[in-house]
Amino acid sequence: MVAELISGLEYSKKVLTDVGIHIAETRKSHPNFNSVLAIVQVGNRSDSNVYVGAKIKKAKEIGAEGRLIKLPSSITQGDLEREIKALNLDNEIDGIIIQLPLDCNNNIDADHVIDMIDPLKDVDGLTRMNAGRLMRGELQRTIFPCTPFGCLYLVQQATGDKNYVAGKEVVVLGRSKIVGAPAAQLFLWHHATVTICHSKTKNIKEKCLQADILIVAIGKKHFVKGDWIKPGAVVIDCGINVDEPTEEGKKSKLHGDVDFEAAKEVAGFITPVPGGVGPMTVAMLIRNTFEQAKRRRLHHEFDE
Amino acid sequence: MVAELISGLEYSKKVLTDVGIHIAETRKSHPNFNSVLAIVQVGNRSDSNVYVGAKIKKAKEIGAEGRLIKLPSSITQGDLEREIKALNLDNEIDGIIIQLPLDCNNNIDADHVIDMIDPLKDVDGLTRMNAGRLMRGELQRTIFPCTPFGCLYLVQQATGDKNYVAGKEVVVLGRSKIVGAPAAQLFLWHHATVTICHSKTKNIKEKCLQADILIVAIGKKHFVKGDWIKPGAVVIDCGINVDEPTEEGKKSKLHGDVDFEAAKEVAGFITPVPGGVGPMTVAMLIRNTFEQAKRRRLHHEFDE
Ligand SMILES: NC(=O)C1=CN([C@@H]2O[C@H](COP(=O)(O)OP(=O)(O)OC[C@H]3O[C@@H](n4cnc5c(N)ncnc54)[C@H](OP(=O)(O)O)[C@@H]3O)[C@@H](O)[C@H]2O)C=CC1
Ligand SMILES: NC(=O)C1=CN([C@@H]2O[C@H](COP(=O)(O)OP(=O)(O)OC[C@H]3O[C@@H](n4cnc5c(N)ncnc54)[C@H](OP(=O)(O)O)[C@@H]3O)[C@@H](O)[C@H]2O)C=CC1
Repeated sequence: MVAELISGLEYSKKVLTDVGIHIAETRKSHPNFNSVLAIVQVGNRSDSNVYVGAKIKKAKEIGAEGRLIKLPSSITQGDLEREIKALNLDNEIDGIIIQLPLDCNNNIDADHVIDMIDPLKDVDGLTRMNAGRLMRGELQRTIFPCTPFGCLYLVQQATGDKNYVAGKEVVVLGRSKIVGAPAAQLFLWHHATVTICHSKTKNIKEKCLQADILIVAIGKKHFVKGDWIKPGAVVIDCGINVDEPTEEGKKSKLHGDVDFEAAKEVAGFITPVPGGVGPMTVAMLIRNTFEQAKRRRLHHEFDE
Repeated sequence: MVAELISGLEYSKKVLTDVGIHIAETRKSHPNFNSVLAIVQVGNRSDSNVYVGAKIKKAKEIGAEGRLIKLPSSITQGDLEREIKALNLDNEIDGIIIQLPLDCNNNIDADHVIDMIDPLKDVDGLTRMNAGRLMRGELQRTIFPCTPFGCLYLVQQATGDKNYVAGKEVVVLGRSKIVGAPAAQLFLWHHATVTICHSKTKNIKEKCLQADILIVAIGKKHFVKGDWIKPGAVVIDCGINVDEPTEEGKKSKLHGDVDFEAAKEVAGFITPVPGGVGPMTVAMLIRNTFEQAKRRRLHHEFDE
C-alpha cells in the first residue's frame, strides 16, 4: 500500500462537529437561530427511508433540525409543487431537498419540481439558477452540490492545502447533474485544468493517466483499473455499487467505481468505498443548510 | 498551406439566408409573424454604435427586425431594470440583448440586469437560468450563446458532419461567461471529451496538442503557436485583438488569438480573423431571435 487513505467518515464528523459549534456560537447572539432542513419524500422506498433517517439523525446530533414531509405515492405534480411553494414561504425552513428517486404512481417531472425550490433554500445546488451561477464561477452567490463539495473538501483536507487544486490536472469521469457536471465546474473554478469524460469518451485510460486528481462518478463497479492511475495522484471515488447478498441473512456489499485494491498501490491519496465520499454528502447537506440559514436569517454576505 | 479555410463570412450568409427563408415561410401561414430583436444600448460608445448598426441591418436584410433602445449614460440601475421589465412584457419583442460594455456614469451590475431578461426572450443565452440548463445538457430547453453556437456550427459545416464533435477531444482556451465556459458545455453536450484551460493552466501547449478541435477565446494576439496544433485539427479562433493604426487615416487591423500563418500549415481546418467567428456571432443572434419568436409566438416545442 502506497496511497494514504482518505477517511470520509472521519472528515464528515469534523465537518458536522464544526457546524454544530458554529450553530451554538450563533445562538449566543441570536437565541432563536435555527437551521432547519425540510426533506420531501414521496412514497415509501425502504432505501429512501434509511437515507432520510440518517440525514435527520445527523442534523439533530449537532443541534440543527431535519423535518420529514412524507407525501403519499398517489400525489400529483400539482400538489407536489404546492408543497414546495408552501415550504418556500415557510419562514421556519432554511433548506429544502427532494429525496430521489420519487416513489410515485403519477408521472412527475422531478427536475421541474426541484427547480421550484427558492434558490435561497436550495441546499443541493440542483436548481438551474444555482447550477448556472456555478457554471459562471459565481461561487459566492451559489451553493455547492453536496457530493462534489465533499470531493473538493476531501482533496483540500487530505493534502492539507486549500489551494491544492489550482493549476492541477483534474479528470472527471461522469457528467450527471448531481455529481459529474457540477464537480467539473467546482474544480474548474478552484482553478484546475479540467477534463470531462463520459460514455462517449474514446481513450479514457489515457485521460485518467494524466490526472493529478481523478474524480470518478459513473456507477460501474471497479471500472477504473490500477494502471489507469498516475503515480501519486489523488483518487476520489464517488461510486456506490451494491452487490446484493448471495446468501440469506448476509449483508449487501458496497463497491466503488475504482478497483481500490490495485489503485491504492499507485495513488498518492485514495478514498475507500464505503466510508469515503458517501458520508461527506450528508455532512455537506447539513453544512449547506446552515450556510443558507445564515444568509437568509442573518443576511450573511449574499447579495441577492 | 495545408488547412482548409473556414469562411465564417460565407457560412454566416448561409445562416441568415436560411432564417430569412424560414421567416417568409412562416408568414405564409401566420401573416403577422415577426422576429423582433430589442437591443438595449446605454450611452454612446462609437464601437457599440457600429455593432448595433450591423445587427439591425442584418436583421432587416432577411425580413426580421432590430429595434434600438438607446438610453442615456446617466441612467440608474433601477431605471435600466424597468426598461428590461417593460421589454419582457412587450408582446412585440422576441429577443432582448444588452449591448456590452455599458457606457454609464453610474455603477451598474450588468450581470444582474441581464439576468432579468425573461429566459424566453434571452437570445444571448446569458441568463443564469439558460446557462444552468446548458450546463445540465438540457439543450432543447435553453438557447445557445451566440459565439459558441457559431463555433459549433462552423465545425459541423466545415467537416460536413453534424456529429463530428462526438467522441472528439475538444480543448477550450478561456472560461469566460460569454465564450469559453458555454463553448465547453456546448461541445460537451455534443459528446466531445472536453478540456477547459485558462490562465492558471500549466502545460497549455501540451493540452492544445491533444485537441482534435481547438477553440481559442482568450483575447491575446497570436498566443497559440503553430507547433501547438495537432496535425489535421480543426482550429476555431474567437479572438479579436485590435492593432490601433500607427498612421492617421490608416485602418485598425484585427488579429486572432492564433498565429494564423503558422497554424494553417498544420491544421486541417482553420478560421481566419477577421471573417471567421466574428460574423457568425451576429448571424446566430438573429437565428436565436427567430427560434425564440417561434417558441413564444407559435408555441414551438419548448416545454416551459
Ligand atoms: N457518494 C454519494 O453520496 C453519491 C454517490 N453517487 C454514486 O455515484 C455514481 C454516479 O452517480 P450519478 O452521477 O448519479 O450517475 P448517472 O448514471 O446519472 O451518470 C453516470 C455518468 O457516468 C457516465 N458513464 C457511464 N458509463 C460510462 C463508461 N463506461 N465510461 C465513461 N463514462 C461512463 C455517463 O455518461 P453519459 O452521460 O455519456 O451517459 C454519465 O455521465 C453512482 O455509483 C452513484 O451511486 C451518486 C450520488 C451521490
Ligand atoms: N467573435 C466574436 O464575436 C467575439 C469575440 N470575442 C473575443 O474573444 C476573445 C475572448 O473574449 P472573452 O471570453 O470575452 O474574454 P475574457 O477576457 O472575458 O476571458 C479571457 C479568458 O482567457 C483566459 N486567459 C487569459 N490569458 C490567458 C493565458 N495567457 N493563458 C490561458 N488562458 C488565458 C482567461 O483566464 P482566467 O479565467 O484564468 O482569467 C479567461 O478565462 C477576445 O479577443 C474577444 O474580443 C468575444 C466575444 C465575441
